[in-house]
Amino acid sequence: MEVKAYKKDSDHSYTLGAFPTFELLKTRPEIVREVIVHSSFTDRESIEEEARKHNIPVVTNDKLIGKLSDKENCFVIAVFDKYVSSLSSDKPHIVLVNPGNMGNMGTIMRTAVAFGIKDMAVISPGADAFNPKTVRASMGAEFRMNVRYYDSFEDYRKEFPEHDIFCFMLNATSSLNVENCKHGPLFSLVFGNEATGLPDEYLNVGKSIIIPQSDEVDSLNITIAAGVGMFMFMI
Amino acid sequence: MEVKAYKKDSDHSYTLGAFPTFELLKTRPEIVREVIVHSSFTDRESIEEEARKHNIPVVTNDKLIGKLSDKENCFVIAVFDKYVSSLSSDKPHIVLVNPGNMGNMGTIMRTAVAFGIKDMAVISPGADAFNPKTVRASMGAEFRMNVRYYDSFEDYRKEFPEHDIFCFMLNATSSLNVENCKHGPLFSLVFGNEATGLPDEYLNVGKSIIIPQSDEVDSLNITIAAGVGMFMFMI
Repeated sequence: MEVKAYKKDSDHSYTLGAFPTFELLKTRPEIVREVIVHSSFTDRESIEEEARKHNIPVVTNDKLIGKLSDKENCFVIAVFDKYVSSLSSDKPHIVLVNPGNMGNMGTIMRTAVAFGIKDMAVISPGADAFNPKTVRASMGAEFRMNVRYYDSFEDYRKEFPEHDIFCFMLNATSSLNVENCKHGPLFSLVFGNEATGLPDEYLNVGKSIIIPQSDEVDSLNITIAAGVGMFMFMI
Repeated sequence: MEVKAYKKDSDHSYTLGAFPTFELLKTRPEIVREVIVHSSFTDRESIEEEARKHNIPVVTNDKLIGKLSDKENCFVIAVFDKYVSSLSSDKPHIVLVNPGNMGNMGTIMRTAVAFGIKDMAVISPGADAFNPKTVRASMGAEFRMNVRYYDSFEDYRKEFPEHDIFCFMLNATSSLNVENCKHGPLFSLVFGNEATGLPDEYLNVGKSIIIPQSDEVDSLNITIAAGVGMFMFMI
């Protein structure tokens, strides 16, 4: 099997590094094509044991690891088939509107799983959830989530009309505090692009919320804003 | 004046990019030696206006910008003298114990200023707060802070015996919630290294706190943990 550098329209992608590879083997072994290890990888035994349970081949290929990885400290890679998920209609969601950065997207996935949110809608255009950079930033938490792309927020809304919508915006009408994030069992936390935020029309969609912050900074980093928002809604 | 690539023992450093450069000119103009702009920089007039107020020279030098910057989209750099700060004894602090990553340190500075914390202690060894990567990650928020290095936590503690200490640890005895983060006017929020966390001896220093999180992830990213912690203490 030939494995090429990742492209957005590939039918497969790969994990970079031991942690996300173990996460993938534990959570979605059925989509793993093979595991590639570097000859100097020190934990080969554990990865082989996990792969053997699911009859996944493990091969040594230093050259291929070098080709697929952009960092020097990557010693194991799993090649996996991309998959399509549906969001749970009975769980809270996070919604990213036009996210631009794969590292941020992965970090938000990792935080979401930490706080118990496992369903993510992405409003297109948006960063590629299956790019190896996103997978790596998520530390493999992505494999525990359902991630689905929608052409528009309206399309998402139509599918989940029962969810209460909370839009995080710098020009919002409510501040984030214990009182303002009271909610029923179904809700969606909506965050905009890291450079531009949510467009003004989102002021009229559900409830808009600002995380109180000093005007001495431009804004919070999107991963911090999403982390604080999810924490307050999930505790 | 010759400007060389940054080294930890240089007596000067520099900002990379327009946003941190404007922040520096606004907050600490007295330490700026000169501003270097690329010939294709589109906002030269604003930067010259700001620099002129403080008699700071503005020079065009495409080659030097290329040499000092590792990214292609950097069009302006300010060279500044490093400085030593003292922490305010009458304000809350954030304490980073052996932080390893400059990007994380800068992001935590940006978040701290956003939530009103402007004093940061760093327990050595720790990442270099003046490295241009840290300054860039802080988006210039660093210039609004007092940052001071200490050889040990004990040294820090001796200087600020009145501050209540809250240590963020995965094996803490209390969970982060509204009740557990009640505090007086003086407190220190303490966070460990991104890979190893705080050593166990910090369990006996003040109150230890864990941010409730699923065991499906290894841990929160340190910048997210610090963001959530600072938000809960500062609202």
